[in-house]
Amino acid sequence: MMALDGSMVIGADIVRGAAGTVRAIDPATGAQLEPAFGLAAAQDVDRACTLAEEAFDSYRATTLEQRALFLETIAQNILDLGPALIERAMQETGLPQARLEGERGRTVGQLRLFAKVVRDGHFLSATIDSALPDRVPPRPDLRLRKIAVGPVAVFGASNFPLAFSVGGGDTASALAAGCPVVVKAHNAHLGTSELVGRAIAAAVATCALPQGVFSMVIGEGRSVGQQLVGHPAITAVGFTGSRQGGLALVRVANGRDEPIPVYAEMSSVNPVFMLPQALAHDNGALAQGFVDSLTLGAGQFCTNPGLVIAIGGSDADRFFTAAATALQAKPGATMLTPGIHEAYTGGVAKLAGIEGVERLAEGQPGSSGCAARAALYACDAATYLRTPALEDEVFGPASLLVRCRDEAEMVALARRLEGQLTATVHALAGDNALAAALLPVLERKAGRILFNGYPTGVEVAHAMVHGGPFPATSDTRSTSVGASAIDRFLRPVCYQNLPAVLLPADLQDANPLGLARLKDGVLITA
Amino acid sequence: MMALDGSMVIGADIVRGAAGTVRAIDPATGAQLEPAFGLAAAQDVDRACTLAEEAFDSYRATTLEQRALFLETIAQNILDLGPALIERAMQETGLPQARLEGERGRTVGQLRLFAKVVRDGHFLSATIDSALPDRVPPRPDLRLRKIAVGPVAVFGASNFPLAFSVGGGDTASALAAGCPVVVKAHNAHLGTSELVGRAIAAAVATCALPQGVFSMVIGEGRSVGQQLVGHPAITAVGFTGSRQGGLALVRVANGRDEPIPVYAEMSSVNPVFMLPQALAHDNGALAQGFVDSLTLGAGQFCTNPGLVIAIGGSDADRFFTAAATALQAKPGATMLTPGIHEAYTGGVAKLAGIEGVERLAEGQPGSSGCAARAALYACDAATYLRTPALEDEVFGPASLLVRCRDEAEMVALARRLEGQLTATVHALAGDNALAAALLPVLERKAGRILFNGYPTGVEVAHAMVHGGPFPATSDTRSTSVGASAIDRFLRPVCYQNLPAVLLPADLQDANPLGLARLKDGVLITA
Repeated sequence: MMALDGSMVIGADIVRGAAGTVRAIDPATGAQLEPAFGLAAAQDVDRACTLAEEAFDSYRATTLEQRALFLETIAQNILDLGPALIERAMQETGLPQARLEGERGRTVGQLRLFAKVVRDGHFLSATIDSALPDRVPPRPDLRLRKIAVGPVAVFGASNFPLAFSVGGGDTASALAAGCPVVVKAHNAHLGTSELVGRAIAAAVATCALPQGVFSMVIGEGRSVGQQLVGHPAITAVGFTGSRQGGLALVRVANGRDEPIPVYAEMSSVNPVFMLPQALAHDNGALAQGFVDSLTLGAGQFCTNPGLVIAIGGSDADRFFTAAATALQAKPGATMLTPGIHEAYTGGVAKLAGIEGVERLAEGQPGSSGCAARAALYACDAATYLRTPALEDEVFGPASLLVRCRDEAEMVALARRLEGQLTATVHALAGDNALAAALLPVLERKAGRILFNGYPTGVEVAHAMVHGGPFPATSDTRSTSVGASAIDRFLRPVCYQNLPAVLLPADLQDANPLGLARLKDGVLITA
Repeated sequence: MMALDGSMVIGADIVRGAAGTVRAIDPATGAQLEPAFGLAAAQDVDRACTLAEEAFDSYRATTLEQRALFLETIAQNILDLGPALIERAMQETGLPQARLEGERGRTVGQLRLFAKVVRDGHFLSATIDSALPDRVPPRPDLRLRKIAVGPVAVFGASNFPLAFSVGGGDTASALAAGCPVVVKAHNAHLGTSELVGRAIAAAVATCALPQGVFSMVIGEGRSVGQQLVGHPAITAVGFTGSRQGGLALVRVANGRDEPIPVYAEMSSVNPVFMLPQALAHDNGALAQGFVDSLTLGAGQFCTNPGLVIAIGGSDADRFFTAAATALQAKPGATMLTPGIHEAYTGGVAKLAGIEGVERLAEGQPGSSGCAARAALYACDAATYLRTPALEDEVFGPASLLVRCRDEAEMVALARRLEGQLTATVHALAGDNALAAALLPVLERKAGRILFNGYPTGVEVAHAMVHGGPFPATSDTRSTSVGASAIDRFLRPVCYQNLPAVLLPADLQDANPLGLARLKDGVLITA
């Protein structure tokens, strides 16, 4: 087993930062965990970024096969960490073993999906317009492909210590695109981060890639993150976290001499619309499914269903009552950090204090200091529509049930929503007219629209979108999960009349990579 | 012929703004042209944006065929304006007839290309991941397509009164994507704008589309433009113009409650690298080609070659002398506006005053007050590398020739360049080693790399990129010319377990639109 010693990864060097120390905390006990982790000084961040810049040209020039093998090597190295990784992650996050093993599977699957995406090469958007020498004026030979933007800064997220962290989706998609990555580890799971960081560094060495392809730095407060985003070598940023944190990085990125894109996945209440026929024919499964989704992982999912909208009446009452009953049975679960627990407690208290909002039910208290007690609140649509504070995400297992007067008020409420990662509709065939009226509204509000399910559980697939209009993300044109996440780290380049000997393999006439290409406006699969 | 009366287009209404007047100027004579144009009041801008928002859902729901026909109708309506359009544009811009007729052809061709792009439907990125009900956990049915972002604000550019203006590339690509458009007309060609604006409004009516699909407003100073970019209904911005103007819009967009993307194509000096063998075997064609490109349209192209880099020696001297001789024969040409002429004169004077910069040649003076005298300056690479002011674009027919000591200094200079729209290399087979060393550097600097040609003349094609790293544009991930320009105005949406009856045609199992789709990771052409 790999030993933890509180180190960062700066290129090929496993080094302990000398600018102070920080420790991970066991949220179940409040105990500080060994070892102490060294904090990065400014020169450490600078060195990581400079190495990334130095590595960029040779890394992006690797073949698709080399890059795919690198991603697969990272996946295998993470698996080879074995139970030690899971045990450390459990200690640091309070998340149960099964959840973390599942998340490890997802993380590895994500790296392997991007290996496939790299081998397929669709992301290159290879396009050829042949020369038309006899046209007046003649048309030159034009060839387009997408290339990597440059070194990418990635911020580990607290709530997915594996899948959205050091070796998570942002890192995997940036590496797939051909971008070196500098990760800022999340302080809520420093040991997990060191283990995964070392696993990636080992893959860099095994694959004989330039050392700057991957680094991971540790910092407290905002200075390391801000230095990273402000560094001239960094060309794009991936972030998952709070709205406040994401917007702070956007401001740094916009204030640079050369502004860069920030892909910040920030906040979402993930509205669930319960349509009349679905409620009328429900046998109780809707309420149980909702409460299970709400309390999964102590409600610490970006796609946690924090808002449920129904049309008032006996069916809605029955659903609300069943949800309240199901929630009351839910045990308290330890949250990721004392800070998150405190924010949750504050958010719930704020909800409870809003006029017109009533508490429907509370879950069981937990035994640990960081245990979240699930909570259900309710109000009518008029209250919701006049109270902007009700739109704020409460990160954790709390949800607000809203009663509408009628279908029109439900659609009006949908129109008033802020941007969301997801919007969910529960509907039977008899609800189709209302569902069809909601659909175009929800398309403009959310990156993913789902029917007859719950939004937690984000499949890593080609068609997934984990994104959405502001403030769900800072860039509505993108997704941070699924194959299309690679598009965030690419830019198009056109080559005009390039001599054949200088053409990159993607664009050579003989198509040695066997890519699907758009040739003279026609899509040709190899 | 359509009569001009100084109007704007606000949805179906051809209305004269009542907030003051402004007139177009004949730059050749300085004369104010009839009629006076009415300026938009704040409520006019608000009405245009509100109508765009109201039109959005029904416009984006049009079929691909309906949208393609709309673009083709606009193209035909512009052609049907006949000589009146060309005559008015000549008066307002000082550009010659042949150039404007060519530009009209390009504008119409662009609208027709986007009609084809819409019919092909590749821009939808239709992707289907089939449900895997037996997997543990089961995979839901996931379907992705791209949809329009919403109403788009377009700013007409001064230097292409047709191709980058009211009915130009930004408008065509936004309408193709399914976005209503509100254009801010450029005051340098108000009559041309009114004619084209009326032609588009007529196409909206003919195609029975909702009136808000297109509006065009007129304003003086920055207030109308800033109001437009700040309006809550606007979701993206297309702009071609100065760096100062572009960055001002970016600031407004970033300062909104809901920030929106700005695609600003701003400034570029379009470096041309003359490699040793190309210069050694030149018969004078290189210099003539360069000077023709430099002085085309009074140098008023975004891709004008404002910087030429060669390795010092007798071949470079011969090229510089030939370029100077060719330039001296060039007649002065009327620039688009007195303001552009004044900026050009100031820019040339600034160049001339920089220590280490010598004037090589001047073109002929022109007869009109706004005539630009072409100019060639020269310096050595050391001067260039220590003088940041030499990197600034001088908009007009002026260029700087830079002598390098050797190949290494040429590559070093390339590394120091800011982001560019284009980078050009003149090379013969014997130059391939140096060209291969330059290529990865230039890929990071420019959106288009061309060999053995000149950068003016931007082909409207599938593989074109008219974009590039900051400050060439505000968004390096995009192009404003060519089929991919549509991508700027799209965002992905994922549909999970949507009932078949609610699925949009693009994503139905039967594939009624005959789209190429990525199905379970495999690209399938229809």
